[in-house]
Amino acid sequence: MAEAETRRRARGGGGAARRAERTAVSIETARFIERNIPNFEILTPEALEIIEHNAETVLEEIGVAFVENPAALDRWRAAGADVRGERVHIPRGLARKLCATAPSRFTQVARNPARNVEIGGKSLVLAPVYGPPFVRDMAGGRRYATIADFRNFVKLGYMSKWLHHSGGTVCEPTDVAVNKRHLDMLLAHMTLSDKPFMGSVTEPERARDSVEMCEILFGRDFVAENTVMTSLININSPLTFDATMMGALEVYAAANQACIVSPFIVGGAMAPVSVAGTLTQVLAETLAGVAYSQLIRAGAPVIMGAFVTSIDMNSGAPTFGTPEASQITYGAGQLARRLGLPYRSGGSFCGSKLPDAQAGYETANSLNTALLSGVNFMLHACGWLEGGLVSSYEKFVMDADQLGTLHKMAEGVASDENAQAMDAIREVGPGGHYLGCAHTQANFKQAFWRSDLLDYKPFETWDEEGARDTQTLAAARVAKRLGDYQQPALDPGINEALNAYVAKKKAETPDSFL
Amino acid sequence: MAEAETRRRARGGGGAARRAERTAVSIETARFIERNIPNFEILTPEALEIIEHNAETVLEEIGVAFVENPAALDRWRAAGADVRGERVHIPRGLARKLCATAPSRFTQVARNPARNVEIGGKSLVLAPVYGPPFVRDMAGGRRYATIADFRNFVKLGYMSKWLHHSGGTVCEPTDVAVNKRHLDMLLAHMTLSDKPFMGSVTEPERARDSVEMCEILFGRDFVAENTVMTSLININSPLTFDATMMGALEVYAAANQACIVSPFIVGGAMAPVSVAGTLTQVLAETLAGVAYSQLIRAGAPVIMGAFVTSIDMNSGAPTFGTPEASQITYGAGQLARRLGLPYRSGGSFCGSKLPDAQAGYETANSLNTALLSGVNFMLHACGWLEGGLVSSYEKFVMDADQLGTLHKMAEGVASDENAQAMDAIREVGPGGHYLGCAHTQANFKQAFWRSDLLDYKPFETWDEEGARDTQTLAAARVAKRLGDYQQPALDPGINEALNAYVAKKKAETPDSFL
Repeated sequence: MAEAETRRRARGGGGAARRAERTAVSIETARFIERNIPNFEILTPEALEIIEHNAETVLEEIGVAFVENPAALDRWRAAGADVRGERVHIPRGLARKLCATAPSRFTQVARNPARNVEIGGKSLVLAPVYGPPFVRDMAGGRRYATIADFRNFVKLGYMSKWLHHSGGTVCEPTDVAVNKRHLDMLLAHMTLSDKPFMGSVTEPERARDSVEMCEILFGRDFVAENTVMTSLININSPLTFDATMMGALEVYAAANQACIVSPFIVGGAMAPVSVAGTLTQVLAETLAGVAYSQLIRAGAPVIMGAFVTSIDMNSGAPTFGTPEASQITYGAGQLARRLGLPYRSGGSFCGSKLPDAQAGYETANSLNTALLSGVNFMLHACGWLEGGLVSSYEKFVMDADQLGTLHKMAEGVASDENAQAMDAIREVGPGGHYLGCAHTQANFKQAFWRSDLLDYKPFETWDEEGARDTQTLAAARVAKRLGDYQQPALDPGINEALNAYVAKKKAETPDSFL
Repeated sequence: MAEAETRRRARGGGGAARRAERTAVSIETARFIERNIPNFEILTPEALEIIEHNAETVLEEIGVAFVENPAALDRWRAAGADVRGERVHIPRGLARKLCATAPSRFTQVARNPARNVEIGGKSLVLAPVYGPPFVRDMAGGRRYATIADFRNFVKLGYMSKWLHHSGGTVCEPTDVAVNKRHLDMLLAHMTLSDKPFMGSVTEPERARDSVEMCEILFGRDFVAENTVMTSLININSPLTFDATMMGALEVYAAANQACIVSPFIVGGAMAPVSVAGTLTQVLAETLAGVAYSQLIRAGAPVIMGAFVTSIDMNSGAPTFGTPEASQITYGAGQLARRLGLPYRSGGSFCGSKLPDAQAGYETANSLNTALLSGVNFMLHACGWLEGGLVSSYEKFVMDADQLGTLHKMAEGVASDENAQAMDAIREVGPGGHYLGCAHTQANFKQAFWRSDLLDYKPFETWDEEGARDTQTLAAARVAKRLGDYQQPALDPGINEALNAYVAKKKAETPDSFL
């Protein structure tokens, strides 16, 4: 961190940079969470051993497919796998052995070094929703997302105290050509926020663009020596690794940039309907994916991911915030810790079309599970609506507020002399009142977590003020945040170079919307 | 259970009873939960020992007040306590020793023996909201509760699959005289439902009426030998046991009926602002209260309770679903287990005025915590709104639906051969699809928990059907449930005797609304 600071000072030493620093408004962001509480372990040691044994059987006997990727097959063959066609049979124990070179914890550097995050161990880093093609707000309803929406969500993320990470595709900017949107998205993260962010994965070429833009933002030497992006590589479950995603992973791992290797599973469709069966497949898939990242570059930072949801067997709709999803999230956390890998899972998941009570129940079920599962990187931590089809403005700020509860829960319970409060109990005695006692006066400011958004008012006040529900309060908050937003300082030279890069890249090829 | 069934058959042997049985509609109720998952333990062994040591110090040095209750002071003196005025100083270790005669698990019998519940060990029994003077529904808004509302909530509870218990004061019937409402409330629980219920605690005399009505319902000999009520005895925190509540406890303990001995604490007001300090006071208070129940009758069933909420230090409002409340709920569970006592805590807590997203977040935070805290008896498990001032019709059915998730979570993760699903993974292979495979076909009906209320529809269908939010769906469900309600069969002779008892008692004294 100290190194990064020095570098930035040296590079941004011009008068313009100093002026920008002086006029910038500093936004308070909480440090990433370091848990001081245990994890919840739902699987017995026997169940863990069965699942681990079965996952190795899957890798050896059934194998995994690396499709349209002859170089990957060569790498696997060289590593000792039995490759038949595009099917890679990995001898028992090999994948786990290859995973051993992946770091158990790593730092992702942000352009503001105070916002660097550490991923792994007891940490929990919170990043916003990823991928929805639609947005919804209370005034405008549901509509296709645009680059203007994208920028708004980056701004909201920047201003959210409990969000440590700017994320990636906070919504799909559908009004920008498919082959160029990654440039606009990265430019937004780099210039409208100073939190860490994710790179593009939709083509290997776009991953290379992401690295090049980081080299402009951070300096080429710095990127060679530091992890400045964490990007999302989905496995095509069951047991398939497609060339696009693997191509992006190859770019990032070679550049020592972090990847989340994550199956995206709707249970009963892309994995068995049982929790133990799904965990077996998740483990087999992530073992193979993480091992492959280490074949690209031993020591490259990588996160074991599990995105698993249940399904409504009546309609085929994916369902969220359900007990089976929680059981899988808990179990996958145990498997990740036994592998010594950072773990990605959880999020503000819900199936609801509106930020209503259903959204609240399902989201809180998911967030609480993620905290106690030992998740290290939580994508989708705020703003997720309608099964991930929609980025919701109101739910973004509602969820972001609730993320504060995770910070406080994770602190655990102090038992020092002040926390024991024996003097207060003595002072107040039977029938007394604690509000005025010395211990309360000394501690009340930090004692209780307080929502910055939800309604705590007396009924009469609330009623007089319009009997507003949570969505209405959140809509007002969104408007205020976007109105108050001020761009964080950035070296004007870097800003210019980034914009020039994007303009040049866009001019090189015609628009494609496919 | 077999014994109870025989008894009922013998007593209800008339033709009218048989006719009533034949025409009655059977409502499906899930068995109480038996956890197959571990508890979450937030306190270290060191912290537990500190809190236990300090609680004994509180009891010995500060003592507890038993006010306006000379007989209680005599009992404590005889047991070895140092009584000064109304202050009872309990020597270190004495209260814990007295608690040892309380059963760690007991059965509360219902008039339908299939609905008996066991409280303690790994069980979790769910009971509805208790105490609100107001009700709210979507059409009528917020208003004072009446006996008609009370009966509606008993009916909704009876028809809720995941609710094991009919509860007590599901709302305050404010249109019935204060000195007579307990009679109407008990009559409703006894005749409109066949689930177990709670007795009156607002005067010792009303506790005696409760026992007498149970003697009519179950038979005098049966009540002498079985626990047929679980009633809520609040401690007047800090450290005070008032004569009214203790008088009710004395009646119930003497009759071998169960009591929940529970502080009602708004943190920072009735207890220190710190979690460890609050847990110390909770433990001291419940040790004294449970010990006192055993002085009345060694072996009387009793539950250690903890109702603790945080406070908004800006406004003084109690707050719900917050991290400190969760930490206390987890910690108190550990303390209860070390005492070997059944544990009451948790509920569908929220501060929201409406069944909106805030209600959903806060309620889910509370329900999940209660499940993982090892709670054995969860009062307020559905219907709680606005900090407990309001029983919400819509939230009652919304929460009651979510209680299904606790049942599924508590089952834990199977790891038998069917659950391992290796044949399915082999059958489907890389790139395949599980929806049609044999394992899915054999298991899909039980595989995933499914809400019976929330929206899982495709966006277009949902939109065409009116874009309904959760509250709107719930309002329709309430209307349907109340429309479909059919009274469970009851021996007409018993029904008549209960009504005659209530009429006689009401006629004996003038109405009082104080």
